[in-house]
Parts: sequence; C-alpha cells; structure tokens
Amino acid sequence: MTKRTKTAESAKGIDWDRCYAQRTQRMTSSIIRETLKIAQQPEVISFAGGMPASEFFLAREMEEACRYVLANEAQKALQYGVTEGYPPLKAYLVGKMQEYGITAEEDDILITNGSQQALDLVGRVFIDPGDVVITEAPTYLGALQAWNVYGPRYVTVPLDDDGIRVDQLEDVLKREQVKLVYVLPNFHNPAGVTLSLERRRKLVEIAASCGVCIVEDDPYGELRFEGEDLSPLVALDRGNVLYLSTFSKILSPGIRLGWITAPKEVIGKLVQAKQGADLHTSTFVQMVANDVCQRGLLRPHVLKLRKVYKERRDTMLASMEKYFPPGVSWIRPQGGLFLWVTLPEHVDTTEFLKVAVEEKVAFVPGPAFYPDGRGRNCMRLSFSNVTPEVIEEGIRRLGQALVREFG
Amino acid sequence: MTKRTKTAESAKGIDWDRCYAQRTQRMTSSIIRETLKIAQQPEVISFAGGMPASEFFLAREMEEACRYVLANEAQKALQYGVTEGYPPLKAYLVGKMQEYGITAEEDDILITNGSQQALDLVGRVFIDPGDVVITEAPTYLGALQAWNVYGPRYVTVPLDDDGIRVDQLEDVLKREQVKLVYVLPNFHNPAGVTLSLERRRKLVEIAASCGVCIVEDDPYGELRFEGEDLSPLVALDRGNVLYLSTFSKILSPGIRLGWITAPKEVIGKLVQAKQGADLHTSTFVQMVANDVCQRGLLRPHVLKLRKVYKERRDTMLASMEKYFPPGVSWIRPQGGLFLWVTLPEHVDTTEFLKVAVEEKVAFVPGPAFYPDGRGRNCMRLSFSNVTPEVIEEGIRRLGQALVREFG
Repeated sequence: MTKRTKTAESAKGIDWDRCYAQRTQRMTSSIIRETLKIAQQPEVISFAGGMPASEFFLAREMEEACRYVLANEAQKALQYGVTEGYPPLKAYLVGKMQEYGITAEEDDILITNGSQQALDLVGRVFIDPGDVVITEAPTYLGALQAWNVYGPRYVTVPLDDDGIRVDQLEDVLKREQVKLVYVLPNFHNPAGVTLSLERRRKLVEIAASCGVCIVEDDPYGELRFEGEDLSPLVALDRGNVLYLSTFSKILSPGIRLGWITAPKEVIGKLVQAKQGADLHTSTFVQMVANDVCQRGLLRPHVLKLRKVYKERRDTMLASMEKYFPPGVSWIRPQGGLFLWVTLPEHVDTTEFLKVAVEEKVAFVPGPAFYPDGRGRNCMRLSFSNVTPEVIEEGIRRLGQALVREFG
Repeated sequence: MTKRTKTAESAKGIDWDRCYAQRTQRMTSSIIRETLKIAQQPEVISFAGGMPASEFFLAREMEEACRYVLANEAQKALQYGVTEGYPPLKAYLVGKMQEYGITAEEDDILITNGSQQALDLVGRVFIDPGDVVITEAPTYLGALQAWNVYGPRYVTVPLDDDGIRVDQLEDVLKREQVKLVYVLPNFHNPAGVTLSLERRRKLVEIAASCGVCIVEDDPYGELRFEGEDLSPLVALDRGNVLYLSTFSKILSPGIRLGWITAPKEVIGKLVQAKQGADLHTSTFVQMVANDVCQRGLLRPHVLKLRKVYKERRDTMLASMEKYFPPGVSWIRPQGGLFLWVTLPEHVDTTEFLKVAVEEKVAFVPGPAFYPDGRGRNCMRLSFSNVTPEVIEEGIRRLGQALVREFG
C-alpha cells in the first residue's frame, strides 16, 4: 500500500526504564507461566499448570453452539455488547448459584475475562497503596500477581486441614485496619484443603462484625469428588462477600469466561472499572457458552469431570505412597485439581525443580504461593491434565529425584 | 445441592464508599455506553456509538472458522494459552502491518482484548499519578476512560484540518516533562481529520529528539475511502512509537480482539501487566480470527466495507447540506466512521441531546471527547451502522431539532 518511508534517525533513543510507572517495578512474570514453557517440552511430564484435561473439552457441543449463535444471532454476537455481560448468561448464573444457596439477581453479576480479570478489577476498585489485604498462607499466586500492581501490604493467616485459621484471622482484624480478606474455601489452590462449615460461619460473622469485605474465590467448588457440598460464604452473608467463579475449570479456560457476584453498588464500580479496562467480555464467547449451558450440557460434563479427576487424584496419592521417600507429607483434597506436598525442612523446591526437570517432570515450587517467599520446602502438584498412567510415571520420576537428592 | 443456610445477620454493614480506592473516584461511566442505552430504544435513530455495520459481519465465514478450529484443534483452542498471543495470528499481523510499511517481528506484538485493553495496559505500565500525557483536543474518550484511573495530568494540543498542531506540540514538549503523546492520525475519532504526511514526519522527529514516547492509535486506518494511504508514525520511527490497532472495525468488535506493536522490552512489560490483568486473550477467538484471516477473507471484506461506509458518509454529508441550518459546520473525513459537527458557540450539545432524543435521534455531545470539558457546542455523528435511507431521516430529524431550538 504505502511506499516505505525512510526510517527517521532517532536523535535520542528512549530510556524505557526511566519511563515506566512505579507500579511496573512490582510486576513479575508468573512462575506458572514460565514453568509452562518448560512443560511445553514434550518429554516433560508436567504437574505444574492448573490446566483442565484437554481431552474432555466439549468440542462438538461448542461447535454446535457456534453454529447456532452465528446462524441465528450473528448481528448481536459479533457486535459490541454491554459491559455488565450478556443477560441470558447472567440469568443462567443466577439459577446455577441458587443451587449452592446463593441468592443473587442478574444485576448482582458482572461477567469477566476469567476469574483473573475479576481479581484485577477488585484490586483496581478497592486497593490503595499500603492497604492491608489478608491472604491465606499459602494462597493463589494469580491473586498476588493481580494485586501487586496496586501496592497492598499483605498480612497472611495460616491454613490447617480445615482451612484458614479463623481464630488467628480474628486477632489480625483486631490489630490491623484491613481492606480485604481473600480466601479460597473449596479445594484450596495450592493447599488442597477445604474450609469447614463451622469456620465458614465464624468467618462471615467476624467479617460482618468488623465491617470488613471478604473476597471468596471459588473456581473449583463444583469439582467435589466426595463428601457434602458446604455452603459458600456468600450464601451465609451476601452483604460482605464478593464471590468469584469461572467457567475455566468446568467448560474451558481458553474462552476466558468468569464472573463476580457482589452487592449492586460494588458491581456498579466494577462495571466502570471494566469499561476502562476492555469495554466488555466477548459477546460471541458469552453467547456460545450460554448456548451450551442452556442446553443443559454443563451439568453432565461436570459429573464426568468429577470422576475423571477423582481417579487422577487417587492415582497420584497411591503413586506418592509408593514412590516418595519418608519425610514427605501431603494433603488429601476432597476435590479440585491440586495436591500440596511438604518436603523435609532443609529442601529448597526452587532448586529441586531444576533436578526434577532433568528427570523430565515439573511442578510449581512453594514460594510462588506466598507473598513473603515462604513455602521453600513445599510444592504444588496438579493432577488434572495428566492421564493416570502418566501420573504414575511422573510421580515415579519425582520420587527418584527426591531419593537421589535427599533420600 | 447444599441446604440453604440461614443468612447471618450483619452486625455492621459495610460502608462501601469508605472502602473504595482513591482511583475509583476518578472512574466515570462512559457516555458512549450510557448513550447506547438510549439508542437501544428501537424508534431512536442512533448516530452515537461507533459501531460497525452489523449486517455485513462475516457470519458464515466465522461459522466455518469455528467448525474448522473445533474439529481440528479443540484441545489447543479451549485450553490456556500464552499471554503474548497465538503465534500464527501474530505472524499474520506481521505481514499485514508490512503492507503499511511497518516492520515488526512476532515478538514485537501483544494480542489484547480489543484496543481498549491495549490502552489500559499502556496506562498501567507507563502512567504514574501526575504524569503529563498529551492528547489531541478533541480525543478518543475511551483513552481518557482507560487512563483516568492512573491519574495523569492531561495537556491538550488542538487539531486543525491536517491533524494535531505539531508546532504547538513542540512548544508543550519544551515546557513540560511529558510521559506520553497520544494521537489518532487516521480519520480521527471524533474529529474525522487525518494527520498530513509532512506533520507525521515532523512529529516523529520531534518525539525522537525529545526522547518522548508516542502512542499511535489506528483503529480505522484500513477504512480509507479516497486518497493515498499515509505512512503510520510507527513506520517512520519504530523506536519511539507504540502502535495500537484492532479487528473491531474490520472484522468484529464483539470478539474483542486487538493488538499492540512496540519495542520488545516494552512488550515484555505489557505482557507482565496483561498476566496480572487477565492471563491471556481467548485462545479460541484468536484461532477463529486467525483462520478467517489466513483464508484471505479479511481483505475483500475490508474493500466492501470501504464502499459501504463511503456511501454512508456521502449520504450523511449530503443530508447535512440539505437539512442543517446555517451556522453549522463539519469536517469531511477521508475514511473511518465519524463526522464532527460544530454548532454555533452558544449551543450546549449536552442539553441539545435531550431535545434530539425527543425527536428520536441520538449523537455523542462534544465534551465527552475533551479531558477538560470543552467541546460544548460540538457533537460526534457516526454513520457506520445506519443505512443511507435511515441516515437521511435521522439527519432530517436532527436538522429539525436544530431549527426548532436555535434556528
């Protein structure tokens, strides 16, 4: 088209480092993302990323949905949409959440580009530099990555087998002016634990009495393999809880579709934040996902995924029993995608990852999940996107590396 | 599933206003978005939103692309992807930009959720509170909305028929420590003007000599109805320019797909920012768009759109000649989607919009496009998503309202 014009000589190149905002210095590459690059080598067995099982994606059903949407509603699907989200999809989510005791209206929901964007928007709307954010220790690294740019001061509360130590949380709330309390009650990423019902009740009670906001992140709640569903925090107190969930683990992460449920006035602010961030989430993707959901295809798919992931969890647990040396311990999660493994005190899993990769197996080292770099002797293993046979082989390799290094 | 648990009594409700971050006070609803709500009343003829013509979307071609991608590469398309973007789509963009004299490699590109996200990421990476950002006056309101949360101080430079007054820009650069210069060289939104080649050369020369970064926003460059393509700024100096473009106006805004081309080290920072913001843009959408592009379907579509929009522009210009009272003036754009109309000094278009909506016609009032609320007597008309017959009727209504109020 245009003739190439001679490139102007830059009299003075830009010193980019001098140009970046202060918050840019707080950005770091996600260790999960970097580890994915290792995991892309085909011979490496990766327990690193929290990826759903690719072979069970609803490809044909999604194809049918695309055909339906584009044959019947292309002019809407390919056009700009409202920031709040596609109303029929929000109506579907109202019903879906109702099954878990969550009473919400369409206007209490904002559709986001996966939960990650919901975390970012929460940070954007709530966190001033220096604000205290309470997280569990360990916690989801994506939340840290979303919020670091907003400059909070993290205060951590430990987990035990029943989830966050609510007694210790109460002490922190007495001592500190807290902006947000961030928790993952179901099949914690990375710790695998589930918050007990008793502590859930206590948690919302304390939060209400202190007037502090809880951010409840629930990407895995539907992937329960055994035991009873426990009431989400937002079902116990709608007023103080921002509830985040996603289609990533039950339908597809590649479509980037999540949502946040919150009091209407908070949704209003989140909508304004999202307008500036990207106007709205893909209309087309929302309508395709909605079509799959409205045809009732999600529920049987989730039931199937529960079976698949349960088998994989069981295989991983049995393999660890078989191949890991003494002195290694782990949590048995009731659902989700992750196992959290604690190695002897002197082990540094960041160093050990290099050894493991030589043995062609990968995981995420513990410190990625702590705002303060603890978790040195821990690692997260994901069992979701690896077949049982490969899980056993991968754990065998990992056990071999452990024995070689520390056995 | 779970039995409904009795909602805990909130001992103390949350005072949300006290919880929001300071930046949240700078968030405002987009006037375009709000106006869209008016425009949704079916009897209103809307010249407000900058929406592409829905009836020309490539519905069947997109459907074929979805079928191909889901039949052949579903496991990739529905899975997590890399933050940088889908490599074959980036490769396509390298070739596409080359046609306009832009030399870029795949690693110089980041795929975003429409240009709006690119604007947000640029703000996130570069703008500290108080930093000086130069915009044209008027300028794209989406940029203001993206950046307001980062707290810049805007300094504006006026436009004339040849685009930004580069001589006045030079004066500002001598006077102020400037972080970014934001320009829309082609078929300016909202002003409709195009930056002359002479000024393009001068602009990159000045920016290079001052070591200041230019943000070149080019959503409409391919929609030229007449005259020669002019070299993008980034083709004149790759070192100092961040170049933003999008599939929104040439394929579909509803899929939310745009990109930014920048020096590799800046892309690295933008990638880190995007990881925190939403991990990555939909793999599925990227692969579907890539399939349409690789099959060569975009070019003939763009040629068709040029004809369609040219006819609509011409109809709007002719209708304004016919129906608008004396004292109203406008720019004749060589491409794009917008006409910028200047009314007599004493007219307040924000007030006049109410009258216009009573006459069942809508536009965007001028002040939306100024960081400082000027443009009181101006309005933006979009001709892209209205058929010629309806354009004439809408302009007749608008002319009637003008005569009634100010004639």
